[in-house]
Amino acid sequence: MYAEIIAIGNELISGSVMDTNSSFLAERLISVGIEVRWMTSVGDNEPDIKESLKSALNRAEVILVTGGLGPTHDDITACVVAKTLKRKLIQNEQALNWIKKLFDSAGLSMPPNNEKQAMIPEGAELIHNPIGTACGFMIRENGRLSFFLPGVPREMVRMTDESVLPILKREKGEGFRFKTETLKVFGLGESRIAELIKDIVERDEGIRIGFLPNFPENYIKITAKGKNDNEVCSKVSEVADEIAKRLGDYVFGKDGQTIEGVVGDLLRSNGDTIALAESCTGGLISRRLTDIPGSSDYLKRAVVAYDNQTKIDLLHVPKRMLDEFGAVSGEVAKKMAEGIREYGKTTLGLGVTGIAGPGGGTPEKPVGLIFISLSDSKETIVKSYNFPGDRAQVRLLTSQSALDLIRRYYLWMDTI
Amino acid sequence: MYAEIIAIGNELISGSVMDTNSSFLAERLISVGIEVRWMTSVGDNEPDIKESLKSALNRAEVILVTGGLGPTHDDITACVVAKTLKRKLIQNEQALNWIKKLFDSAGLSMPPNNEKQAMIPEGAELIHNPIGTACGFMIRENGRLSFFLPGVPREMVRMTDESVLPILKREKGEGFRFKTETLKVFGLGESRIAELIKDIVERDEGIRIGFLPNFPENYIKITAKGKNDNEVCSKVSEVADEIAKRLGDYVFGKDGQTIEGVVGDLLRSNGDTIALAESCTGGLISRRLTDIPGSSDYLKRAVVAYDNQTKIDLLHVPKRMLDEFGAVSGEVAKKMAEGIREYGKTTLGLGVTGIAGPGGGTPEKPVGLIFISLSDSKETIVKSYNFPGDRAQVRLLTSQSALDLIRRYYLWMDTI
Repeated sequence: MYAEIIAIGNELISGSVMDTNSSFLAERLISVGIEVRWMTSVGDNEPDIKESLKSALNRAEVILVTGGLGPTHDDITACVVAKTLKRKLIQNEQALNWIKKLFDSAGLSMPPNNEKQAMIPEGAELIHNPIGTACGFMIRENGRLSFFLPGVPREMVRMTDESVLPILKREKGEGFRFKTETLKVFGLGESRIAELIKDIVERDEGIRIGFLPNFPENYIKITAKGKNDNEVCSKVSEVADEIAKRLGDYVFGKDGQTIEGVVGDLLRSNGDTIALAESCTGGLISRRLTDIPGSSDYLKRAVVAYDNQTKIDLLHVPKRMLDEFGAVSGEVAKKMAEGIREYGKTTLGLGVTGIAGPGGGTPEKPVGLIFISLSDSKETIVKSYNFPGDRAQVRLLTSQSALDLIRRYYLWMDTI
Repeated sequence: MYAEIIAIGNELISGSVMDTNSSFLAERLISVGIEVRWMTSVGDNEPDIKESLKSALNRAEVILVTGGLGPTHDDITACVVAKTLKRKLIQNEQALNWIKKLFDSAGLSMPPNNEKQAMIPEGAELIHNPIGTACGFMIRENGRLSFFLPGVPREMVRMTDESVLPILKREKGEGFRFKTETLKVFGLGESRIAELIKDIVERDEGIRIGFLPNFPENYIKITAKGKNDNEVCSKVSEVADEIAKRLGDYVFGKDGQTIEGVVGDLLRSNGDTIALAESCTGGLISRRLTDIPGSSDYLKRAVVAYDNQTKIDLLHVPKRMLDEFGAVSGEVAKKMAEGIREYGKTTLGLGVTGIAGPGGGTPEKPVGLIFISLSDSKETIVKSYNFPGDRAQVRLLTSQSALDLIRRYYLWMDTI
């Protein structure tokens, strides 16, 4: 069983508003076992709405349409649906009373425009809009169910969860169960991953394996479709475990996990605290770690040392070291990590310096040259990198590599 | 002349990734006088890609397709295009050399999988990808132009701006001229803006005015369509100026401007330098300011003081002040701003403290309570805020309000 989604609105096809509804609906449909196969956006005009509707009715069993149910002249969805399905438009009493009630409760009388919103195709069933005047409706035709919902996201969301999904669950059973697991990878390119798990992908056991680059991370989505929950769950986790084993420590997490969260959990469970000394990343690493609620348990301070004086004042990097090696050097990164750790009295210190560009590069020290250092009470690691890309990419790769270095620090400790 | 956009990818129709490409492309096409009429998303499967392509070729003069050009097994766009148009897939030497070069420059040898990315349909013209291995291509057939671009947004954006638009400008003339100006607003809600400019919106002079919320900012897009550049430009800037005047200093910029950039320009042109003391924002303000190339001209240092000891050590906040008023207080925010300014020897200092949540709130100091302070050599301003929303929203609103406070500081100076 497949579904199609149609989003109607000039603002969508002109690019002034991004269609967030279709993506939301697709996710919700999967949760009741229905896969979406097509999504279409058209403008507020009769021929295109008609054509998209006809194509969808030819292809799909469930059709969800959003948009064009407002009170203004350019909202023509109900009217075009009636024409397309050769039904009359008739006034729905229940809908009209609801719209009047909404205006009443705001102490207003209903403008004549809004009467139009109570006109729905003959034989359609009303879908109640608990927070707005745009009434939705559902039409059954040849075993197909079509739903028409307003385009305003918060109204559409409420109506989907409160009316559409319960109807679909009841009427379309839940033919299939879907289960997806996502493995999150950093440090391996998409094609290298594909190479490493080629045989698993090609095995074709009713499992779909998809690749989803999400710079600078790569996601592997493993989806199983089956008759019952146990079956799909065990299928998916079996394949996910096999892939995770194959890719080793490049896999940093799964599903909803983030590298910031994984690193935070490692710091907390090891009883560590950390202080950061950032240069080229300008606070990005600190921001990422503090995205996580409760991060004040382990992150104590960060210093963004955007000039040399700050490196001397707050990180205790010796001036002669800056003069001798330059601010962008392994020596300075090491001293930054040690300085912030010692002064901040944390168990770990991280130091990052480099050239994010576009300016500041030289033949010896080009844009993208980065040094990352991690220091604990026993030793200090320093790594150097040459990252490609523009300023935003270099900064993102640097922050990601810094977080990954902390993650790997704990992996190394485990192997000792 | 109309265009259609097709986005290919299982991740799109499953709802796991939102398609941001189509909306971007529609906007860019308008800028060269081409309107989009249909947008379609389909999965990585041959029949649906084929059908969507055929429909588009029947309806539109220009077709833009994104996605499915990666190196993995599920990237089948080039192959399906070749089949649909009954062309052979052939290896493009130029493309292959480029891919090899990219791997070379990273010190890697090209994995065999990537060879596939140099295979394009016979007769297609290569569209160079300056930052990735997924090559694009263009096909001419029956006076129609079809472009195939990778789905990775930053690659697609570069290729559109550097190759696709120049080709379209040259080959498709520019039947109509469109001109859009975007006003960027912070501090006024969408419905309040709509109320304030209702009469301008309803005037209906061939100008389209759209609202585009982009949390925490609101954009107003003013678009004119006409026969020549002078006409549309003067129409648009007349309306934009009228709206900007009406909304006053809530408008912080237009078109490509960002608040980080606007603030940076103000700091530089006033010969100021700044140091930041952040608590709940955890480095977000510093990261935003340092997103701008050349920001080291004015941003000297930032301290993320996530614990009290750091506020004492690095910002010189007296311990008794922390004990008496608490870390989240106007007094501490003021001291943070003054401390970082004095110690960092900058002309301006910014201090931010608050409760981002979800934990840490109390009845007296709830989640969302924020203090922002800005200090110069003469005086220190402190403002308090109560922001709604979750941790991410509170942090974003705080960073935005801090940047806006710096911007308004210069507005106030101008009015004295």
